[in-house]
Amino acid sequence: MSKLFVRTLRENPADAEVPSHQLLVRAGYIRRAAPGIYTWLPLGLKVLRKVEQIVREEMDATGAQEVHFPALLPREPYEQTNRWTEYGPNLFRLKDRRENDYLLAPTHEEMFTLLVKDLYSSYKDLPLMLYQIQTKYRDEARPRAGLIRGREFVMKDAYSFDVEDAGLDAQYQTMRDSYEKIFNRLGLEYVICSAMSGAMGGSRSEEFLHPTAIGEDTFVRAASGYAANAEAVTTPQAQDIDHSDVPPAEILDTPDSTTIDTLVAVANQLRPRDEPWGAKDTLKNVVVAINHPDGEREVLVIGVPGDRDVDLKRVEAAVSPAEVEVATPEDLEKHPELVPGYIGPTAIGPNSPNRVTDEDGTISGSVRYLLDPRVARGSAWITGANAEQKHVFNLVYGRDFEADGTIEAVEIRDGDPAPDGSGPLELARGIELGHIFQLGRKYAENLGLTVLDENGKARVVTMGSYGIGVSRILAALAETYHDDLGLAWPINVAPAQVHVLATGKGAEIFETAERLAAELTAAGFEVIYDDRPKVSAGVKFKDYELLGIPHGLVVGRGLADGTVEIRTRATGEAQEVPVGEAVSTLVDVLRADLAAHGE
Amino acid sequence: MSKLFVRTLRENPADAEVPSHQLLVRAGYIRRAAPGIYTWLPLGLKVLRKVEQIVREEMDATGAQEVHFPALLPREPYEQTNRWTEYGPNLFRLKDRRENDYLLAPTHEEMFTLLVKDLYSSYKDLPLMLYQIQTKYRDEARPRAGLIRGREFVMKDAYSFDVEDAGLDAQYQTMRDSYEKIFNRLGLEYVICSAMSGAMGGSRSEEFLHPTAIGEDTFVRAASGYAANAEAVTTPQAQDIDHSDVPPAEILDTPDSTTIDTLVAVANQLRPRDEPWGAKDTLKNVVVAINHPDGEREVLVIGVPGDRDVDLKRVEAAVSPAEVEVATPEDLEKHPELVPGYIGPTAIGPNSPNRVTDEDGTISGSVRYLLDPRVARGSAWITGANAEQKHVFNLVYGRDFEADGTIEAVEIRDGDPAPDGSGPLELARGIELGHIFQLGRKYAENLGLTVLDENGKARVVTMGSYGIGVSRILAALAETYHDDLGLAWPINVAPAQVHVLATGKGAEIFETAERLAAELTAAGFEVIYDDRPKVSAGVKFKDYELLGIPHGLVVGRGLADGTVEIRTRATGEAQEVPVGEAVSTLVDVLRADLAAHGE
Repeated sequence: MSKLFVRTLRENPADAEVPSHQLLVRAGYIRRAAPGIYTWLPLGLKVLRKVEQIVREEMDATGAQEVHFPALLPREPYEQTNRWTEYGPNLFRLKDRRENDYLLAPTHEEMFTLLVKDLYSSYKDLPLMLYQIQTKYRDEARPRAGLIRGREFVMKDAYSFDVEDAGLDAQYQTMRDSYEKIFNRLGLEYVICSAMSGAMGGSRSEEFLHPTAIGEDTFVRAASGYAANAEAVTTPQAQDIDHSDVPPAEILDTPDSTTIDTLVAVANQLRPRDEPWGAKDTLKNVVVAINHPDGEREVLVIGVPGDRDVDLKRVEAAVSPAEVEVATPEDLEKHPELVPGYIGPTAIGPNSPNRVTDEDGTISGSVRYLLDPRVARGSAWITGANAEQKHVFNLVYGRDFEADGTIEAVEIRDGDPAPDGSGPLELARGIELGHIFQLGRKYAENLGLTVLDENGKARVVTMGSYGIGVSRILAALAETYHDDLGLAWPINVAPAQVHVLATGKGAEIFETAERLAAELTAAGFEVIYDDRPKVSAGVKFKDYELLGIPHGLVVGRGLADGTVEIRTRATGEAQEVPVGEAVSTLVDVLRADLAAHGE
Repeated sequence: MSKLFVRTLRENPADAEVPSHQLLVRAGYIRRAAPGIYTWLPLGLKVLRKVEQIVREEMDATGAQEVHFPALLPREPYEQTNRWTEYGPNLFRLKDRRENDYLLAPTHEEMFTLLVKDLYSSYKDLPLMLYQIQTKYRDEARPRAGLIRGREFVMKDAYSFDVEDAGLDAQYQTMRDSYEKIFNRLGLEYVICSAMSGAMGGSRSEEFLHPTAIGEDTFVRAASGYAANAEAVTTPQAQDIDHSDVPPAEILDTPDSTTIDTLVAVANQLRPRDEPWGAKDTLKNVVVAINHPDGEREVLVIGVPGDRDVDLKRVEAAVSPAEVEVATPEDLEKHPELVPGYIGPTAIGPNSPNRVTDEDGTISGSVRYLLDPRVARGSAWITGANAEQKHVFNLVYGRDFEADGTIEAVEIRDGDPAPDGSGPLELARGIELGHIFQLGRKYAENLGLTVLDENGKARVVTMGSYGIGVSRILAALAETYHDDLGLAWPINVAPAQVHVLATGKGAEIFETAERLAAELTAAGFEVIYDDRPKVSAGVKFKDYELLGIPHGLVVGRGLADGTVEIRTRATGEAQEVPVGEAVSTLVDVLRADLAAHGE
């Protein structure tokens, strides 16, 4: 400890809000170099390398082969797949001295595709699985929580290559199984969630989420075992309703009723009924702006039951790779038919008098209007009448208005029905540890990766993409393995296995502690020895607790009676043992702990 | 081999000129992703990791502690040391989404200095040595020779921190010794050359150069053991000469004599003498342009004996961190006193009628004029008379003209005297493997890194910086360890230790080869097994030779007689052994080879 490049902090750093971030900085594992960009200090680097090694071993066990790509890459391949544009401001772009465009790669689908194209040409070369453990870059709008969302981070990314869909299924399953092994070895709880593939394209996709309140991903699960990223939850289309009894639509003056609450109050005044009107009887029309990758900004109206809020992340997933934001006053000015507070479906979408549909189906003249699938054909609504201070009652979908389609837009709530019909959903938050995708043939088609089959026919290769956030895993570990006093690493990822403390003043204490530390080192264990001569026992214990080495050996006052103390960091248990038995006892403890972690 | 992600090439890639580059690409170790940017394929990555591990072990053995810095860094620290500007176009610069300036770090002095400042405050914390093995970026004007000069590359960089100069000396020596161990373990010949520190600042500096004809660094050595980078060779100032016998300077018409050759011919015509005039009697005035880091472009004239050429790399080292290029016609137009072909010292430098020297010593009104140290005070020259078709004879330095100082500008030649007086220099070329610098207090002063000494007084820390080009080492290894057939790796860096070849058609051959490969693997060795069923023996041998695995085991026709063949790649030696003894014999060979490499 007197030489180790570490300084522990008693206070949480000002910019750290979650425990993992606070403790990793306080214990001297990482240090911020810039927003979302961290330096690894000696202890942090040791944990990172151990996590990497576990990931590597499990990847190698599947037969995947490790390669290593540059982080600095030319624009062209990403241009060909349109991701140079699609990534928007998340991509770090730069020019070299010859003014050629480069990027810092956020992921490497293009490069792997081109490499395989470069080397392979026959179906006999496949299946193939390649991976790398490599530094990636994303210019996140809001880097947060230390290693959880960074701008420079370490990822394991793997890519599978097959001729047949069944081959992709098999390799996808192999990676899925491997991920389970990895997170089990790391002692990290995970939930496998169905996921949208977002900007990655492709079909099947699952996320490995680590459940924790500080996670930034919302997911749902049901008793059946169903689990999905909130963005991936699908809502069944509500069944058609018979509207033959519904009176004709009627426009009423509804002064000062620009919110759902005021509208419901006014409705109950104007047209009281046995079951009072509620928010669920109103159709809320929310205006959003979609930024398409080609630069087009589209204003879109989404109709949802008034008792539901729109979840922009779910909307974004639905329109990916486009990005979504709340419409601005400037957006609304361009569409005078949208009367704020009184927007209704009869003047927009297919019902707009300005709507023009070209021969090729291109829509112009009016904004698109999409409905939440909960809105049933035949259902009647109170909604805006497209004029100041006016709403329309008994407006029936399919009778009085139409829409351009449906969209998954509203937020998922605790208790919503599971899509598989297995009962209510439970909402939870998590950290995304891994993500596996069936990309299909999108990248291979774009970049011309084909192989010749048995009959000499060129076949487009089908691909999968499989990522693990390696540096992020350290945050998940620190979130899981800590208490009020500090970190408490599992033995297989801890920067050292034993922390020897010399607490006291006698030379004998220091000599004994040093000898025991040396014996443990000789027995093949990694040891931190707190040899600082002028540091109090209290400070040494505090540092031991903060650093989180799983096993402690305290050489202190008890030495006068011939005993030392063996401690377990995670449980706080302590036992006195005769000094002569200390090493053999501790070695047994260490071996048992390692064995319990499958090492 | 049927699964290994590798494709060997029979032809050299078009862009590869040196053997290491050709072979590393042909054998499927690396692949170009962009100019100076390479992808590591499985075999290449294995070698890279082994080289890294050797470097890491030796660093750890010195007590240096490993950390890991980001590659993407904010501008501010580099601005503070002026390197944001000094690096010029060699620095990859970019902006993040908030328009903040970032760079891809070419080296990390600033960040290490700030980290130590952040964590440490007392002299008791020192000495300290930190290192990292990390990806670096330099936007080289001319990336070349594969891994020898790349734009993204792996470096080990270490930094030492001390209070006293003696501490820096000691840590510098520790690193120097460690480097010797590393290059010895790697089996790479090296010469330790005195070096200029260039843009790094500081005092003592040495390069570890690997001598090879394809190297891009020129160095010199003498029988005494003296060795230096060509840029670092110093020329003693020629001793003053008595010029009392020299007649007055005389301007003569010298038509069409704009080159040294024509001038010498004209001189011998106009003023014949016993010992004919030679190039060495003329003073050549070379105009160069200096690009200063602050953006200023200075035109400078350098006077050198006419039998010597100016070496721009040496000039650049002398004016570092400024950059040098040949003056353009535009540069000359701005200085009408410079008459091309007839430039002479009497109208420039201190002798210029336009020269103005401010009170603070700032020079203006005329270009600076610097002399090669070989030009002795009192020596007489034939040189330009600053007018078309005219030269001046018997122009004596110190009598008829002055200079602004001296500069190391002329090229070093085989046979030039060693600066230590030990005899003639031998010129050679090499690859820079490592570079160690005594930075001194420059960075610590710039960035405010001080510690309190015993008396509570703040002391500026003195630093060293120690680099090894880790990825470049692979090129040096490939240059050293190859023959006409391919690569031939030393066993301690080879991607595998044994290459088992099944050459023939019988099932028994493949079964035996597979069994032997499995036994060797079980014995703890890394094995490549060429199991390809439809590939000819000839192709398998060619691939074995190209890949360069140090030991081969051939299971082929001899198996009918109960024998297999053990081969040594480097020597081409082969011995038949009974199949039952193959593994034990080979294990002995492998152990002996490993032992010979200190493993």
